[in-house]
Amino acid sequence: MITQSEYNDAILRARTYLAKAGIVLTLEEAENIEVADFGLGELDRSGLALITYVNTERCCAKELVLFPGQTCPEHRHPPVGADPGKEETFRCRWGEVYLYVAGEPADNPACKPPPAPEASYTVSHEVRLGPGEQYTIPPDTLHWFQSGPQGAVVSEFSTRSRDELDIFSDLRIARQPQIAPE
Amino acid sequence: MITQSEYNDAILRARTYLAKAGIVLTLEEAENIEVADFGLGELDRSGLALITYVNTERCCAKELVLFPGQTCPEHRHPPVGADPGKEETFRCRWGEVYLYVAGEPADNPACKPPPAPEASYTVSHEVRLGPGEQYTIPPDTLHWFQSGPQGAVVSEFSTRSRDELDIFSDLRIARQPQIAPE
Repeated sequence: MITQSEYNDAILRARTYLAKAGIVLTLEEAENIEVADFGLGELDRSGLALITYVNTERCCAKELVLFPGQTCPEHRHPPVGADPGKEETFRCRWGEVYLYVAGEPADNPACKPPPAPEASYTVSHEVRLGPGEQYTIPPDTLHWFQSGPQGAVVSEFSTRSRDELDIFSDLRIARQPQIAPE
Repeated sequence: MITQSEYNDAILRARTYLAKAGIVLTLEEAENIEVADFGLGELDRSGLALITYVNTERCCAKELVLFPGQTCPEHRHPPVGADPGKEETFRCRWGEVYLYVAGEPADNPACKPPPAPEASYTVSHEVRLGPGEQYTIPPDTLHWFQSGPQGAVVSEFSTRSRDELDIFSDLRIARQPQIAPE
């Protein structure tokens, strides 16, 4: 768990990264940046901040902020009824992000996963995204990502987002952030 | 029809607007900016420039550039088979854009449609979008938009885009840009 003040600090910090990327938010959006620590309580290692611009039955757009070296843990977006699962495109706007997906493992990967139980990180094909570069993740496909030393701002374009249904490889993870009472 | 040099000039100009908005493109994207004049041959009045980041069966993201006072003519995205038609969210990133949709007509609209045959512009409820503001257009719904005096850069988040099926109220309009031989 992270504390309310850690949560609030992360919001303030995320705003500075969005400003560096030239992204303008409304006042209401800036107040409502979401901070996800995946219930691990180690926001410096695992987590991200995000703004959801729109999330209808059919499509979704978000802005993701990763602080330097922060990891979004390995997960997939499973099918839901007739929906094959969330398809998402990550487009790096600022900084750099390393995306890991199934395929030939990187010989010298730029990133190491954070410490986690066995089988929490299983895919290791590396895709580096700098500003203006993007990659599309098919539905129900394992992936994780980590920002470089500057951090990263990444636009996500996708089908409907149902974060609460995401399946993480690290079985400790609960997607909803949990804030400790102070 | 516009000439190849008008088309090329519009690409160069669009790049400067994207730079003002802080949007980074790959070299390949910058080379492949699309200019739409809707076949009207009056790019200063009607048209826009765009980059399509992704357009899969399920979702699409684009960046639109409107030069000062430029209009995207009234149109709708009709159903296609089981698909109810394209749903789109416009998010202004830079400048300002006035969106017109069905509903109570504006008393003092900020924009006038360009000269066009009768019934080319029928909806006149005004929505102003400044940086960070957005609006979602349901499928199969008439809309048109015009930028303010600075021009505008607008992100579009949507379901699959099938521009060639768009239905324009101005019956002169062919969606595919036509370039005159020089």
